[in-house]
Amino acid sequence: MTQHRKGRTSATAQPTAIHPVSPLAPKRFVRLLPLDGVRLAAGEAGVRYKNRTDVMVAIFDPGTKVAGVFTKSKAASAPVDWCKAALSRGSARALVVNSGNANAFTGKAGFKGAAEVAVAAARAVGCDADEVYMASTGVIGEPLPADRITAVLKDVAAKCAPNRWREAAEAIMTTDTYPKMAKATARLGGKTVQINGFCKGSGMIMPDMGTMLAFVMTDAKLPAKVLQDLLAEGVKPSFNSITVDSDTSTSDTLLLFATGKAGNKPVRSASDVKLRDFKKKLNEVLLDLALQVVRDGEGASKCFKVSVQGAEDDTAAKKIALSIANSPLVKTAMAGNDANWGRVVAAVGKAGEKADRDRLRIWFGKQLVADKGERAPKYDEEKATKEVSKLETEIRVDLRLGKGKARVWTCDLTHGYIDINGSYRS
Amino acid sequence: MTQHRKGRTSATAQPTAIHPVSPLAPKRFVRLLPLDGVRLAAGEAGVRYKNRTDVMVAIFDPGTKVAGVFTKSKAASAPVDWCKAALSRGSARALVVNSGNANAFTGKAGFKGAAEVAVAAARAVGCDADEVYMASTGVIGEPLPADRITAVLKDVAAKCAPNRWREAAEAIMTTDTYPKMAKATARLGGKTVQINGFCKGSGMIMPDMGTMLAFVMTDAKLPAKVLQDLLAEGVKPSFNSITVDSDTSTSDTLLLFATGKAGNKPVRSASDVKLRDFKKKLNEVLLDLALQVVRDGEGASKCFKVSVQGAEDDTAAKKIALSIANSPLVKTAMAGNDANWGRVVAAVGKAGEKADRDRLRIWFGKQLVADKGERAPKYDEEKATKEVSKLETEIRVDLRLGKGKARVWTCDLTHGYIDINGSYRS
Repeated sequence: MTQHRKGRTSATAQPTAIHPVSPLAPKRFVRLLPLDGVRLAAGEAGVRYKNRTDVMVAIFDPGTKVAGVFTKSKAASAPVDWCKAALSRGSARALVVNSGNANAFTGKAGFKGAAEVAVAAARAVGCDADEVYMASTGVIGEPLPADRITAVLKDVAAKCAPNRWREAAEAIMTTDTYPKMAKATARLGGKTVQINGFCKGSGMIMPDMGTMLAFVMTDAKLPAKVLQDLLAEGVKPSFNSITVDSDTSTSDTLLLFATGKAGNKPVRSASDVKLRDFKKKLNEVLLDLALQVVRDGEGASKCFKVSVQGAEDDTAAKKIALSIANSPLVKTAMAGNDANWGRVVAAVGKAGEKADRDRLRIWFGKQLVADKGERAPKYDEEKATKEVSKLETEIRVDLRLGKGKARVWTCDLTHGYIDINGSYRS
Repeated sequence: MTQHRKGRTSATAQPTAIHPVSPLAPKRFVRLLPLDGVRLAAGEAGVRYKNRTDVMVAIFDPGTKVAGVFTKSKAASAPVDWCKAALSRGSARALVVNSGNANAFTGKAGFKGAAEVAVAAARAVGCDADEVYMASTGVIGEPLPADRITAVLKDVAAKCAPNRWREAAEAIMTTDTYPKMAKATARLGGKTVQINGFCKGSGMIMPDMGTMLAFVMTDAKLPAKVLQDLLAEGVKPSFNSITVDSDTSTSDTLLLFATGKAGNKPVRSASDVKLRDFKKKLNEVLLDLALQVVRDGEGASKCFKVSVQGAEDDTAAKKIALSIANSPLVKTAMAGNDANWGRVVAAVGKAGEKADRDRLRIWFGKQLVADKGERAPKYDEEKATKEVSKLETEIRVDLRLGKGKARVWTCDLTHGYIDINGSYRS
């Protein structure tokens, strides 16, 4: 285990992966620029980790609107319950996130801890407690040492500055091997607006609403209702289309904050044509972040897109795509550079959706490997193997039954996953 | 890779596991005794493996009735389709099983191959082709070299004898590390009848009807309809309650043959009280075989029962139990002797069934670890760790909502699973 010493690379201790950095990590990190109305910072509360940051605070200027989507888990964490309740007001002044402890399945003490953090943050920022949003990630079931977080909140709030995005993205990492950030600019109502986002993975990932933790911020001026509609739509082809290990988390949280500082013309509905470019760019940022989660899936040595077309409908296509993406046999074959398309057939077959073995077509990348219920006549083992040996590849399935289609992204299943999860309570 | 040489341990080459024998393998194999009306033998067809048996034949005396349950996969294998069609007659004279090739997703050539095997077996045995049952296990998508099987059928049929059960059980192994057999005797209609069964695993196991391949034979005299009803009922708490890796196979086949030689009094319905003991013993044999499959799950270092009670209904309980048993995070925690009950909470939460976090109770063995939405007051990490370090253990969940209950069995997820499936086209 290598952990950065306090102050080794910057004034603030940077958490660095305790596992080898994913081979799919970006070569260069995107640099998020200041966004009018947002200031951030990170601090060391010592919730679980030592000598690294584990709490981040973002402060929003008055007038900031917020939307959120959350895990559908029946065992949702206390912070998820807190945020859901706060959303009825739809106004945000602060975000507090800690790593090391998920504050999930922690009973009444968990809610008390969440409330204590909100109250302390509200005091430090000068707002109401229900304008404080929060998320926690880490071990499930351990009581949250809320006092360690509240003890540092005032200092961290005082440090908040417009340019500390990476610091914030690093403080929320758990088994992540790199910080995940994305940005975009869009034209909206006569103005250029910015979108900044960051998130974390990297195990217990099959989001059923948002992924583990993702935060997107914009200076666009948009009402909470519009933000919520945009987020509900945007999460489907992004965070709700990725899976690392089929294990939906108790803590999935995706929050979208809009400070309104850009001063664009008013927008009253998510279907307003003025939103066209903003929607496109927002969805790009969401997908970019979601793919960074897949590329940092626990133990990932490669990632692949699963594209399903020709299904009865889109729902059936999604179910079949997830059946392939979650199949341990498909994932281990990919890890072993084994063009084992028979396992893809089996995964299609087990999905329970309408499928006709004798119409099915399967491609690895551009290589057609199976056609009409049997091995493709021009099947070439060498080419197929070359295709699945790539760092990023695609499995494509055409059921040739209807117009339903779906795409999901996932990573392979390697010894690294076992190492991370079989020997270490993350 | 170690493979037994031909004749190393007996006159017939015995296939032996190419992977280390499961630590959960039985210390001594049960010895199946002759069963009136059944003769068996194995042979070497060289379908895929060298220097080991890979085809088995069983010959049944005239009058033998048969029942079967099969995979619900939409990509079922050619032998599955063959058996389903033959069952409309319900009379069996032969069973032919090969390992090394699943004859699944092999198109028209696959059906042609299956028919060729049936015709050749019928000729060797002296019966109709639709009295021949068959199953194939191994690689999916490779054309079946049917000629290699038909070339040896006559010789294997000639060798068939009443005492070659183990030889038959060994010939159908693929990644199995030991042969799986079970037996029982039961009182039925004034007679003592025998039940012999054998089966194979050991990856792509989450049976959706029967498991990979399982064959049970009895000398009881029972009509095909009664056999079918008994099997449909008996498969639920046995083969349909196990999972190794959540990957339902294309080839799941469970066949039950009754030679009628015991000469018991007639039985006309599965609800006949005369069947009480037979049902009990049949179900015991089915569960015994199913558990042997779990204990030989690919890479298994331990196995555990997941018991769910207090769910809304039995269906909800089963879904929650499978959500736990299939969770890669629960399975890797078990592999690492990590009493990580938070992952059990998450698996309950993601199942999508009704659950109340604040009522939930979880035990590892007899250790109550979680109670009413948080860690149990008397939680003892050392005792919990000791419990999950056992070779066979139990995770028990009480939802405290209703009367629904279910039990499923599974194994852990280890480096062995990755080794077997990431580096070798099984």
